[in-house]
Amino acid sequence: MKVYLDCYPCFLKQAIQAGRLVTDDEETIKKIIEAVALKIPNFPKESTPPEIGDEIHQIVRDITGSPDPYRRVKDANIEDANQLYPDLKKYVETSGNRLYTAAKVAIAGNIIDYGIGRDFDISTEVFTLVDRELDIDDFDDFQKALAQAKSVLYLGDNAGESVFDRILIEEIDTPVTFAVRDIPVLNDVTYEDAIASGIDKVAEIISSGTSAPGTILRKCHERFLKLFRDTDVVISKGQGNYEALSGINRPIFFLLRAKCPVISADLGVNDGDILLKGMNIPEMVNYS
Amino acid sequence: MKVYLDCYPCFLKQAIQAGRLVTDDEETIKKIIEAVALKIPNFPKESTPPEIGDEIHQIVRDITGSPDPYRRVKDANIEDANQLYPDLKKYVETSGNRLYTAAKVAIAGNIIDYGIGRDFDISTEVFTLVDRELDIDDFDDFQKALAQAKSVLYLGDNAGESVFDRILIEEIDTPVTFAVRDIPVLNDVTYEDAIASGIDKVAEIISSGTSAPGTILRKCHERFLKLFRDTDVVISKGQGNYEALSGINRPIFFLLRAKCPVISADLGVNDGDILLKGMNIPEMVNYS
Repeated sequence: MKVYLDCYPCFLKQAIQAGRLVTDDEETIKKIIEAVALKIPNFPKESTPPEIGDEIHQIVRDITGSPDPYRRVKDANIEDANQLYPDLKKYVETSGNRLYTAAKVAIAGNIIDYGIGRDFDISTEVFTLVDRELDIDDFDDFQKALAQAKSVLYLGDNAGESVFDRILIEEIDTPVTFAVRDIPVLNDVTYEDAIASGIDKVAEIISSGTSAPGTILRKCHERFLKLFRDTDVVISKGQGNYEALSGINRPIFFLLRAKCPVISADLGVNDGDILLKGMNIPEMVNYS
Repeated sequence: MKVYLDCYPCFLKQAIQAGRLVTDDEETIKKIIEAVALKIPNFPKESTPPEIGDEIHQIVRDITGSPDPYRRVKDANIEDANQLYPDLKKYVETSGNRLYTAAKVAIAGNIIDYGIGRDFDISTEVFTLVDRELDIDDFDDFQKALAQAKSVLYLGDNAGESVFDRILIEEIDTPVTFAVRDIPVLNDVTYEDAIASGIDKVAEIISSGTSAPGTILRKCHERFLKLFRDTDVVISKGQGNYEALSGINRPIFFLLRAKCPVISADLGVNDGDILLKGMNIPEMVNYS
């Protein structure tokens, strides 16, 4: 997805949010704002939002000296999600269609980053969302593709959400590789967050190689890229991965909640909608 | 009011909004964004938001070539407000306390700029607000001050809102001078907008001398400054004038709706609250 005009104010907002997680010193955050503002005219025209996010979060790390501004937020979210895990498992196991319910659980988990900086009861929000119908529902294609697949690549999004991803992975009867960010960026899931979410029990974990808050292919490791090319089914979680990959000509299933008006408009959905959306699916089912 | 950190993303938003009123050419608006972003590190530390707004709207005028991006919005708002005028007059005339009701009408008129870029029924919104209680209500001081005053300086805010200001001015038994912006900026009221709002029938109209969307004293004409110093009662409408004058040591009555979280926090009120708030009033009542 291209950078829209309305993304620019939001880049400053994100930088302020990240800075505030490390310090309440206004001068430091002002420095971050100034550094990001000076970068704005230099972002390449063809950038996607996560590429710019990559640079912004580098600025935040440089100026605050913190390698992981969202550390405490991520720990709290993983802990909350792990506590919900048994209830969610039961919910899936007693449902009519386990794979479908698990996919909805994974999508519902994408609300995790709503919680930053505000009162937020994950349990209530998640169960409300899981009971809702999907606004875009390509589950039939998803199920068909998984039934035929010999390998699945699952692109993680937020830490904490990763516990919900584990629940979906546990319903997939094919070896799954779970890709994480190379270093901490935003509240995105890293290798250690994936371990803390129990992903190592159900999937191989690899780094995509990028430090961006989205899977920017030209910044990924060759090992990841080979997997991305060769894997039968790619599942992409969250907005950042959608922004990075929506323009890529490859079958991908995007599982996410649309949480930003710009992304919602790009997807042609309403803010708050929950989606299991296949892209380039005809090509994918060809290989079967 | 100082510039808060959260103001910076909003400066970019304002610039985009103003640019879009003139053109849908993304390249042009991108140029505006870049020019504003480059200015951010150079804004003097002691600036108030309207001083920065002054520079931003200068950039928008320079890059788009439009001397008045909000012209059509302002014309529409003045027309809508003029159509409401007879109903509002009747409402005031049949009320228990004409001055109080007129003050509430003038405050309700401060929602006019909510209408930019969205469906908006001024009539419904205004009458809903007028029926609400004020969240800060210093009307007793206001009434007392007006009863003792020999001169009133009324600082206008938005075009269209100016019709509602006329209704309040008509209930004040003291000569009123109505101050407007020197040139078009945002949707603020200028000399010609004030005439179109019928203000010339009830008050003398003068320019404050500033092109900022707020009464920045160090940018005002000497004639205005003399009036500002010598006038018995100053009535300040809207957020921009509050931002410019909240730090000034002079009795002022601020009439506004708090429409931005940063200003609401600065005022210690909730977003959406409606206020008739006196500042430095003890000094003011001393002269009586």
